[in-house]
Amino acid sequence: MIENKIPYKTYLDENEIPTAWYNLRADMKVKPAPLLNPATHKPLSADELTPIFCEELVKQELDNDTAFFPIPQEILDFYKMYRPSPLVRAYCLEKVLDTPAKIYYKFEGNNTSGSHKLNSAIAQAYYAKKQGLKGVTTETGAGQWGTALSMACAYLGLDCKVFMVKVSYEQKPFRREVMRTYGASVTPSPSMETAVGRKILAEHPGTTGSLGCAISEAVEVATQNPGYRYVLGSVLNQVLLHQSIIGLETKAAFDKIGVKPDIIIGCAGGGSNLGGLIAPFMGEKLRGEADYRIIAVEPASCPSFTRGKFAYDFCDTGMICPLAKMYTLGSGFIPSPNHAGGLRFHGMSTTLSQLYHDGYMEARSVEQTSVFEAAELFARSEGILPAPESSHAIRAAMDEALRCRETGEEKNILFGLTGTGYFDLVAYQKFNDGQMTDYIPTDADLAVGFAGLPKVED
Amino acid sequence: MIENKIPYKTYLDENEIPTAWYNLRADMKVKPAPLLNPATHKPLSADELTPIFCEELVKQELDNDTAFFPIPQEILDFYKMYRPSPLVRAYCLEKVLDTPAKIYYKFEGNNTSGSHKLNSAIAQAYYAKKQGLKGVTTETGAGQWGTALSMACAYLGLDCKVFMVKVSYEQKPFRREVMRTYGASVTPSPSMETAVGRKILAEHPGTTGSLGCAISEAVEVATQNPGYRYVLGSVLNQVLLHQSIIGLETKAAFDKIGVKPDIIIGCAGGGSNLGGLIAPFMGEKLRGEADYRIIAVEPASCPSFTRGKFAYDFCDTGMICPLAKMYTLGSGFIPSPNHAGGLRFHGMSTTLSQLYHDGYMEARSVEQTSVFEAAELFARSEGILPAPESSHAIRAAMDEALRCRETGEEKNILFGLTGTGYFDLVAYQKFNDGQMTDYIPTDADLAVGFAGLPKVED
Repeated sequence: MIENKIPYKTYLDENEIPTAWYNLRADMKVKPAPLLNPATHKPLSADELTPIFCEELVKQELDNDTAFFPIPQEILDFYKMYRPSPLVRAYCLEKVLDTPAKIYYKFEGNNTSGSHKLNSAIAQAYYAKKQGLKGVTTETGAGQWGTALSMACAYLGLDCKVFMVKVSYEQKPFRREVMRTYGASVTPSPSMETAVGRKILAEHPGTTGSLGCAISEAVEVATQNPGYRYVLGSVLNQVLLHQSIIGLETKAAFDKIGVKPDIIIGCAGGGSNLGGLIAPFMGEKLRGEADYRIIAVEPASCPSFTRGKFAYDFCDTGMICPLAKMYTLGSGFIPSPNHAGGLRFHGMSTTLSQLYHDGYMEARSVEQTSVFEAAELFARSEGILPAPESSHAIRAAMDEALRCRETGEEKNILFGLTGTGYFDLVAYQKFNDGQMTDYIPTDADLAVGFAGLPKVED
Repeated sequence: MIENKIPYKTYLDENEIPTAWYNLRADMKVKPAPLLNPATHKPLSADELTPIFCEELVKQELDNDTAFFPIPQEILDFYKMYRPSPLVRAYCLEKVLDTPAKIYYKFEGNNTSGSHKLNSAIAQAYYAKKQGLKGVTTETGAGQWGTALSMACAYLGLDCKVFMVKVSYEQKPFRREVMRTYGASVTPSPSMETAVGRKILAEHPGTTGSLGCAISEAVEVATQNPGYRYVLGSVLNQVLLHQSIIGLETKAAFDKIGVKPDIIIGCAGGGSNLGGLIAPFMGEKLRGEADYRIIAVEPASCPSFTRGKFAYDFCDTGMICPLAKMYTLGSGFIPSPNHAGGLRFHGMSTTLSQLYHDGYMEARSVEQTSVFEAAELFARSEGILPAPESSHAIRAAMDEALRCRETGEEKNILFGLTGTGYFDLVAYQKFNDGQMTDYIPTDADLAVGFAGLPKVED
């Protein structure tokens, strides 16, 4: 018998689900740099953004001051279908690692999208519906965001058009079927459906696609079709705002069991999960009320935090999107095709970039075979088959727990288990067959992406 | 806003998880008929069963009198990793159906096996481990049971060998990878690895396999390898006993919110989910303490309750397993290859068969296109992509709710949502493409199976 006073899973009651999102930027002394117009290099106004994004979301995007945004009741109703998500004490993993550390994870995978992405998908779809739009367009990499948006749109009766990075489209045919079951249309990107897609295909006929390229296509379709807007699953401030529900629930659950985490670990692609998970904890840190070690974990094959430049860059390959100041590998950077999971965006949330730049958090990169080793051990001990993305955080959490075994420290380690790997079995098969390899870009590889950075006077 | 006093999801606390399984047979006036030795047609003794099954499980299998079996602490610890499962009020489905009925479902899909099968897998693996065995063998159809057993064996450090019905193996390659990730070996059945497999392949070279055939192979391997036993995911009394955790939790959750179901609906293949879900409710019914309408739902393409015979039959195609008295289509019956989901066993739990025979429950069959229509509507309203098996129960629950719309009755309808459809996307794709067809066996088709029934003096 495993002795435990703290339950395996801590659930909040439904009436304890937070009713307002927390805007981390309100507590930042140095605010994230504004988005710039890609032509004029001037800060973008709300008027310039509303042809692309829904009006209410533009307000959220630009608001660096309001700390709390009430969550509309319709969104809370939807949240209740799959939230609160459990805060899990990883008793079995601790035992297998023989560590004195206490490991906790916030598990966001218990919904059909398989990840935390649904938290922002329903919010963005709701505001589109409220604005009277016909539908939304988006891109998806690993497919979780596209699935989440399809679910939200089906629920609200909105049209949904998804551009899916070609390599993922081919590796994950079943993701497409889930999205279709929820009524969405799915196009592999780059495609011949858009001007930007045709241009990229002409220049790089064999390309396996990138998130940056899929974004360009989705934005083009949204801006050229009346009644449509573009929505994005990560990177943006509005997304971090919606995802703060993860951290707020986590903090409330910790308070319930009387625990305070020492180390908080999240995987980082565009920053949606990490930004959401850490939000209230980072808020305390910014206000000087508490201290936490906060660690971002990214793939060694797409290392924007650890090897990128902190500079203004395009968010998309087609260079039609706003410029954002962020840690970036350059909008022309495309991860090696051997890269198996998501976390493949060339840039990073402007908010998280600023916090990292200002020393409020750490970052590290990990190689994918070591990530899948961690995933397998986690699956066999904790029962859940994790998404490759989430497994980056597992890897780092395990490394910290093993360090505690050396030092004897009983640290409380929290990580975000963003999702499940049920649609990543091609990658797992590669790992099971011993065929998985690692890829670390050389400095020369990275120089190609950096060469494409726009010249912006700061 | 949806007005609700009753929460969307009712979770028990961890310390409210039932600590004993309930044995329905204890309250049956007419007990299920005993298993017979296939050679002598005499009731099987414990000694005859222990070469096939673990000792403790044989005791559970044969015990018609003990009402409660305490759940060992090690199993309770494992249960806490994914239980309690939520009892969900389907507010959104009710709204879409515009019904005065209140619909509830017990959702067993929030674990990596994707279904309720884990409840019995961990129990059977635990007793195998306790007996000092090296490993276990089994069969799997849709793949849920095989996955569940792989997870349980990985957790306990047991070897696990799975024979997977060939048509499922081909339709669900990713199931195999999940099982491999948990360290199991997976063989498509019929295979050349066993005498019975070779015989079946010689007689039916193009066969897509059947559960009955996979069972024969798994039993052969278990009985011919020292330190191995065979375990089964459904049909057996011991499995229904372990699965009673579903119904016990459901009843406790209903008591917590002060609701009593009027109609209880479960899909039925071998009976594991149905038997578990209804256990405590049927107990009350048998003891005359309460009344419930209890409905078993099965595929029109594999209609053992609604069109089978109540007779002694082999549990496997190879005719090496015990004879069980049950509703059966004959051990030679193989569902049409167009049958997309699980629920493909030719027979039915002896316990449920007796209860059905004695008028304690109803049964109906549904065709698969109408099942997938129900699944799609459910996914789009309740968010969860259901397993095809579970969707049989959804279909019947929706039909009952629509009937309430006609009559204006506010009935409380409970159904078992046994699992998720994340590995059933080939079937969903067929449905999305409008390529799914129905198949109802003719009387002549069924006569072939019935002709193979053994002659047993009752």
